[in-house]
Amino acid sequence: MTVSRLLKDRVRYAPYLKKVKPVEELIPLFKDGQYIGWSGFTGVGAPKAVPEALIKHVEENKLQGKLRFNLFVGASAGPEECKWAEHDMILRRAPHQVGKPIAKAINDGRIQFFDKHLSMFPQDLTYGFYSKERTDGKVLDYTIIEATAIKEDGSIVPGPSVGASPEFISVSDKVIIEVNTATPSFEGLHDIDMPVNPPYRQPYPYTTVDHKSGIDSIPVDPERVVALVESTQRDLVGPNTPSDASSQAIARHLVEFFENEVRHGRLPENLHPLQSGIGNIANAVIEGLTDSSFKHLNVWTEVLQDSFLDLFENGALDYATATSIRLTEDGFNRFFKNWDEYSKKLCLRSQVVSNNPEMIRRLGVIAMNTPVEVDIYAHANSTNVSGSRMLNGLGGSADFLRNAKLSIMHAPAARATKTDPTGISTIVPMASHVDQTEHDLDVLVTDVGLADLRGLSPRERARQIIKHCAHPDYQPILTDYLDKSEHYAKLHKCMHEPHMLKNAFKFHLNLSEKGTMKVDNWD
Amino acid sequence: MTVSRLLKDRVRYAPYLKKVKPVEELIPLFKDGQYIGWSGFTGVGAPKAVPEALIKHVEENKLQGKLRFNLFVGASAGPEECKWAEHDMILRRAPHQVGKPIAKAINDGRIQFFDKHLSMFPQDLTYGFYSKERTDGKVLDYTIIEATAIKEDGSIVPGPSVGASPEFISVSDKVIIEVNTATPSFEGLHDIDMPVNPPYRQPYPYTTVDHKSGIDSIPVDPERVVALVESTQRDLVGPNTPSDASSQAIARHLVEFFENEVRHGRLPENLHPLQSGIGNIANAVIEGLTDSSFKHLNVWTEVLQDSFLDLFENGALDYATATSIRLTEDGFNRFFKNWDEYSKKLCLRSQVVSNNPEMIRRLGVIAMNTPVEVDIYAHANSTNVSGSRMLNGLGGSADFLRNAKLSIMHAPAARATKTDPTGISTIVPMASHVDQTEHDLDVLVTDVGLADLRGLSPRERARQIIKHCAHPDYQPILTDYLDKSEHYAKLHKCMHEPHMLKNAFKFHLNLSEKGTMKVDNWD
Repeated sequence: MTVSRLLKDRVRYAPYLKKVKPVEELIPLFKDGQYIGWSGFTGVGAPKAVPEALIKHVEENKLQGKLRFNLFVGASAGPEECKWAEHDMILRRAPHQVGKPIAKAINDGRIQFFDKHLSMFPQDLTYGFYSKERTDGKVLDYTIIEATAIKEDGSIVPGPSVGASPEFISVSDKVIIEVNTATPSFEGLHDIDMPVNPPYRQPYPYTTVDHKSGIDSIPVDPERVVALVESTQRDLVGPNTPSDASSQAIARHLVEFFENEVRHGRLPENLHPLQSGIGNIANAVIEGLTDSSFKHLNVWTEVLQDSFLDLFENGALDYATATSIRLTEDGFNRFFKNWDEYSKKLCLRSQVVSNNPEMIRRLGVIAMNTPVEVDIYAHANSTNVSGSRMLNGLGGSADFLRNAKLSIMHAPAARATKTDPTGISTIVPMASHVDQTEHDLDVLVTDVGLADLRGLSPRERARQIIKHCAHPDYQPILTDYLDKSEHYAKLHKCMHEPHMLKNAFKFHLNLSEKGTMKVDNWD
Repeated sequence: MTVSRLLKDRVRYAPYLKKVKPVEELIPLFKDGQYIGWSGFTGVGAPKAVPEALIKHVEENKLQGKLRFNLFVGASAGPEECKWAEHDMILRRAPHQVGKPIAKAINDGRIQFFDKHLSMFPQDLTYGFYSKERTDGKVLDYTIIEATAIKEDGSIVPGPSVGASPEFISVSDKVIIEVNTATPSFEGLHDIDMPVNPPYRQPYPYTTVDHKSGIDSIPVDPERVVALVESTQRDLVGPNTPSDASSQAIARHLVEFFENEVRHGRLPENLHPLQSGIGNIANAVIEGLTDSSFKHLNVWTEVLQDSFLDLFENGALDYATATSIRLTEDGFNRFFKNWDEYSKKLCLRSQVVSNNPEMIRRLGVIAMNTPVEVDIYAHANSTNVSGSRMLNGLGGSADFLRNAKLSIMHAPAARATKTDPTGISTIVPMASHVDQTEHDLDVLVTDVGLADLRGLSPRERARQIIKHCAHPDYQPILTDYLDKSEHYAKLHKCMHEPHMLKNAFKFHLNLSEKGTMKVDNWD
């Protein structure tokens, strides 16, 4: 087949050019029940052409529910995985997802989904844990990986994310490469560790955020590459939610806290490497740091967003490393325009490395994430609304919060329901699902204030959280719950973490029945 | 003061001999509200003479509740901490404890206790997180450490545990050394890492269980050593609970599982380094391995018990490392009799190292621990009975289960109440407290059978757990809960992890009201 000039420019390993195929020719390779890996992380760097061709195939042949895959992606892929979900093409999915159609399919019970720490998922896959039901000994049938260039040795230069691609490639029977010619090459931005499993695993050498292994592409056995296709669709990331009064208040509390930690010698003047999640609070915190007096900051995180570009341009940020750079169209334009500068200050690693307990703990990372809810004793729910309904999955929240020097969660104190502007309290008597335990949270921040939980017993924590973090509408209700629980616990000699189990979820039940968490009483 | 010949033999740094004091002289050093660190871990290696002298002082002067300390020990200390609790001498305590009197004081609300991952607690202490309320900038006022010898440079050779002593020593204003002359010297058995905090922390070099740093004592600034006392009381560890039919059944299921993993190439023939908790199930598992065909096993754990001696003598175990060797009197006698052999095959490290995510993950440890209860979706409660009553604390369970290659929990399927021989089910609809999340458990074993949860969605896990692990008395009750929860979740589009929040703790409430978890219905 004729190969475009653009594609020839990107592929420096000639034998692959003989494997260039139109996507339609690949359709027969895919069978119901196969195990498939996709590149991609937080909606960028996922394959597009082959997944789209399969959607068309399923639509045209009415194969909905008849051509289904066990689909593994480092975290969330692009809109293609949502279309797969809409067409009932996903049998099983791990470890994270984003998008209404895929969440709907999970909550309708049509996709068997399990969420797993993003640092652990790829290694557990290479162990064969997720393919143990197979009788042919294979782990993945195909990995479809987006590349932005191919080097002379046939190795793959990823795009804006590395994710779990190194692990997928290492255990995949066959590999299909999509070379994206619509996006510039990201060559030189990656630092890749291929998986080494016990008993042969060695220490990761990284002792600073800018420490690199020196391998900037993913090696692959060319024999296993069955096809190469050209992809001409850039990643599309929607606009970021702007910060608002509530998220700015949270950022102010946090910056003040950091300043105080520096004053008391518990943090150095340039803090420690920062990890920050996705969303408007994360953006507000980065904005808050941009406007603060902190200099020479570093970032060790899983995903970089537009707000980090401001922190670079302001001169406050020295270096940032992640597994994905998820920018808006505007952001990517800024990024490519200043490529020479950014490529010296940025590095993308595999998610096993970006989220690894070893480095997060060694570097003393400051981790900041947003929960669904937190209870009075500091257990946090990151995933399941009212205990059952899946949002996106655990992601890297627990990789970071468990291993960070400072584990911080931030959220608005209350959110609106249809009938009550403060109908949902972030602070609840008992979390309806626990992803982060009381042992993993140092600091909790809402727009109301900040609770420093370090070294406190559960009952001390509860008083601090209610006082400093709960919305004023809920402070008396939660205090009443705690008082009554303590009264009961005193009688029953279980004062360590007093609860009334019969009322522990009354907030959630009231919400479901009456549209607000404001319960009338605890009887 | 006259120094005994025995003591002179143990102390090879002469200036300390001038600091030898009778314990009574040390009493005035201790003031209400001080922050005190003790050596010790799992009941061995804790100081005895000074704590006993303080008990006597409090008794004689009726100072109960008037001389109280913030007490930090690596894990549990010996019986002395229980006596401190009985005499209201403990204001605050972390991160773990064992013994009825201290648990009673916590559950009566007299001790502010917080439990924390054993690998993290010592480093968080050195960060100043637990002393942030102090205005004098100190972390600990005194560390009282048991030694079995002092080297020529004044450094301390610990006894049967290292625990958090390196960290305590590094942040303690003053140090008191108890040299125990009743127990033989443990010189040569330790391998010590002193704390280095971010941004200066380096990779731990250990890539095998027998890899050592070469430093076999704890360095201390002699200026900070204010006194040295002789202690003549050996550690007293009660007899181990023997294995029984239930724990032997659990061990059989596990050995069979390991054999199958080896057959399928997911484990090497000598497995991976083993971690095993305390108790009769842990002992039965080690006995099961002793009787199995596995050879060249290795152990990377936090505490070694008598059963490991059998595994050594049987020739199946090549090397074991831990932070504590907690043996019975019989066990210690066997151990010292074969010192030359054991000292080549054993090494004790700090708990920051033995429980460190970095090595647990690198080595691919197989972690096995016993929970209080596990729910149908695989969240486990390790600490709080019915959500509120503290047993011992989290210990190292989550250090190991989160980071292991294989995370295993084992427990009897049911236990007796006063009125019902199977009144308590280990498998419950929802855990009343969560210490290990669904993301951290690979395998669950009871005497009934083994559920392999790897790669399963929550609803798939629930069916496996009920079928393979629940006691037959509870299988229909739990299946009914799951069926009804799925029915409800189907209607409300929350099928990821179906629950009925209003009934989630009905097992626990029924137990409290009727003495059994056997609920009549789910209405």
